[in-house]
Amino acid sequence: MGMIEDRLSTLGIQLPPAPAPAANYVPAVRSGNLVVIAGQVCFGADGKLADRYKGKLGAGVSDEAGKEAARLCALNVIAQLKAITGDLDAVVRCVRLGGFINAAPDFTPLPVIMNGASDLMVEIFGDAGRHARSTVGVAVLPFDCAVEVEGMFEVR
Amino acid sequence: MGMIEDRLSTLGIQLPPAPAPAANYVPAVRSGNLVVIAGQVCFGADGKLADRYKGKLGAGVSDEAGKEAARLCALNVIAQLKAITGDLDAVVRCVRLGGFINAAPDFTPLPVIMNGASDLMVEIFGDAGRHARSTVGVAVLPFDCAVEVEGMFEVR
Amino acid sequence: MGMIEDRLSTLGIQLPPAPAPAANYVPAVRSGNLVVIAGQVCFGADGKLADRYKGKLGAGVSDEAGKEAARLCALNVIAQLKAITGDLDAVVRCVRLGGFINAAPDFTPLPVIMNGASDLMVEIFGDAGRHARSTVGVAVLPFDCAVEVEGMFEVR
Repeated sequence: MGMIEDRLSTLGIQLPPAPAPAANYVPAVRSGNLVVIAGQVCFGADGKLADRYKGKLGAGVSDEAGKEAARLCALNVIAQLKAITGDLDAVVRCVRLGGFINAAPDFTPLPVIMNGASDLMVEIFGDAGRHARSTVGVAVLPFDCAVEVEGMFEVR
Repeated sequence: MGMIEDRLSTLGIQLPPAPAPAANYVPAVRSGNLVVIAGQVCFGADGKLADRYKGKLGAGVSDEAGKEAARLCALNVIAQLKAITGDLDAVVRCVRLGGFINAAPDFTPLPVIMNGASDLMVEIFGDAGRHARSTVGVAVLPFDCAVEVEGMFEVR
Repeated sequence: MGMIEDRLSTLGIQLPPAPAPAANYVPAVRSGNLVVIAGQVCFGADGKLADRYKGKLGAGVSDEAGKEAARLCALNVIAQLKAITGDLDAVVRCVRLGGFINAAPDFTPLPVIMNGASDLMVEIFGDAGRHARSTVGVAVLPFDCAVEVEGMFEVR
């Protein structure tokens, strides 16, 4: 068992099946040592969007649910990363996460929500999980998901 | 004539002139084997924004028009790609498209709109056109365009 | 003194201290010859958000203030770039800037605002500062900042 798989097991984290794309694209592309992961939404391991993670932060979705939603997105990012690399130990670095929060126009604590994704990355990959990040509040997301997260990774 | 030019011809697709940037930046930058294309809006081959592609999805712009707008953006992305590479056969892979949809806060079928761009990429480049993708609904876009698409490509 | 430091001095531009991230991530990551800079907001050199740069374009923040805010974001991007490279002369090219404007849904002159960032990049780096760029109007930004700018650079 790989080192990262081992850490996942220690943390009690089970990766969901890598979600299929919602349309005519692929979930991940490798170019040289970079892997780009398509925007992942907060579907659960059952491939469904829980009511709790549907809607806007600041207008129905609680901060706690938003943070959980961001963590779910990050889990899906890692599931895609595993699917394309075949082995999470091949990950050299999480280079960047982009966080899109479905938010009311006056909901400003966006970084706290996105920490749900960032914290998971560091829990699992340690220092290699520390990434550059952009977080913005958008008008709406596919399926009215509360959060969408995209990623860029360096792999060996 | 190159293979991709040949396919464009077979498909009856004529690339527009590569649009000039709206401000103090360049439409494309190459770094190593990566080419980054600036966000392209849905201007037509005449360099103008048709009324049909102006405004928000879910608030005036129809789904059909939105999909056409996304396709126009992708055409402009490819026109920029041709301008910087000189030869579309140099394209190894469409790595990523970012799709920004000018949308009302309750317009959730964003992936369907963005398919206008993704489908064109696959029509033209085949498997090399399959890309990672992030689609979000934004509050507003330059010139009130319905769609903006940015790209990252691997070239040889 | 390096060439770029020299130009900064000639222009009378003093880089702010590189802002600390707002949460559990890092401000910049290098992967090969690419450096990705996390989204930087329009905090001043004192690490604070001036009232003038707080809120939405088209709903309280003036165009002039928006442009200044974009310039501040770009200054912070360059401060992060200096912190990670140690020497701005190592910058080969500004590959891409992503500009997120906190905007009312009917505020369309977004490119003019983002020029505050792009112009600074070209002032400082000359032709190497000419970048691909995507500019979008978002629903809200962290701390209700008027502008957020992220960057990708090629370095030697």
